[in-house]
Amino acid sequence: MKKTALFALTAAALTLSVPALAQFAKPEDAIKYRQSALFVMQQNFGRVAAMAAGRVPFDAKVAADSAATAEFMSKLPWAAFGEGTDKGGNTKAKAEIWSDKTKFMDYAEKMQAEMSKLSAAAKTGNLDSIKAAVGATGGACKTCHDAFRS
Amino acid sequence: MKKTALFALTAAALTLSVPALAQFAKPEDAIKYRQSALFVMQQNFGRVAAMAAGRVPFDAKVAADSAATAEFMSKLPWAAFGEGTDKGGNTKAKAEIWSDKTKFMDYAEKMQAEMSKLSAAAKTGNLDSIKAAVGATGGACKTCHDAFRS
Repeated sequence: MKKTALFALTAAALTLSVPALAQFAKPEDAIKYRQSALFVMQQNFGRVAAMAAGRVPFDAKVAADSAATAEFMSKLPWAAFGEGTDKGGNTKAKAEIWSDKTKFMDYAEKMQAEMSKLSAAAKTGNLDSIKAAVGATGGACKTCHDAFRS
Repeated sequence: MKKTALFALTAAALTLSVPALAQFAKPEDAIKYRQSALFVMQQNFGRVAAMAAGRVPFDAKVAADSAATAEFMSKLPWAAFGEGTDKGGNTKAKAEIWSDKTKFMDYAEKMQAEMSKLSAAAKTGNLDSIKAAVGATGGACKTCHDAFRS
């Protein structure tokens, strides 16, 4: 019980130095958070894309699970692009993310919408629908990377 | 459209070198995947733990959202502890994960169960229930780290 309390306290201490509403203790954590979320998303999306491209055999269950995970992950990175997280850590984020936040968030929302459509398509198990949705989703990823990732 | 197809192809190429059922292109990807998933989980859990410890003001909505995300994330790392992923990248995983896989998975399942209880508690908005669940969840994290993380 003592150890448990200590652990909770350690976890709590991670956010000790932040104002109440900030979500991350330091810019490095925010950068690592968004990169981590995007990596988990990309790995799951890539699995479905590989099936869509015929590079690996189509497995409807794996495709549906992976697309659902990618959809969930697509919602997470954006809270970690707060002010002051443009530097620190190993970020490829361009300054335009903060100077043109509206456009950045438009692109982010477009990608999330496409990822939701992909997840819906994967649930049907129809490979042609999945292929179309993979193309649209990949396009949304690329549009944002071209504009906002160096 | 051409660019979109290219992007999908690039994503597909990531899994090119793997057998059909392997989920990761190389051990480094598996290691990065499980570390990424655990980091996103820990950040969300830490936010709830900070509220439970009174270090940041309690916000029922943020607590419920963060706990739900932590619960989702708690399911992801385990597929990335496959054979051959004990080395490569910057892993702290002990060899015992693979030599005592049953115990490792027991601990992993215990943590997931506690994280689900925390998420349920956070949905009620009752801080006392959240505190108890944070303690139990933190304990499950620590038990596994003590045994399997160097």
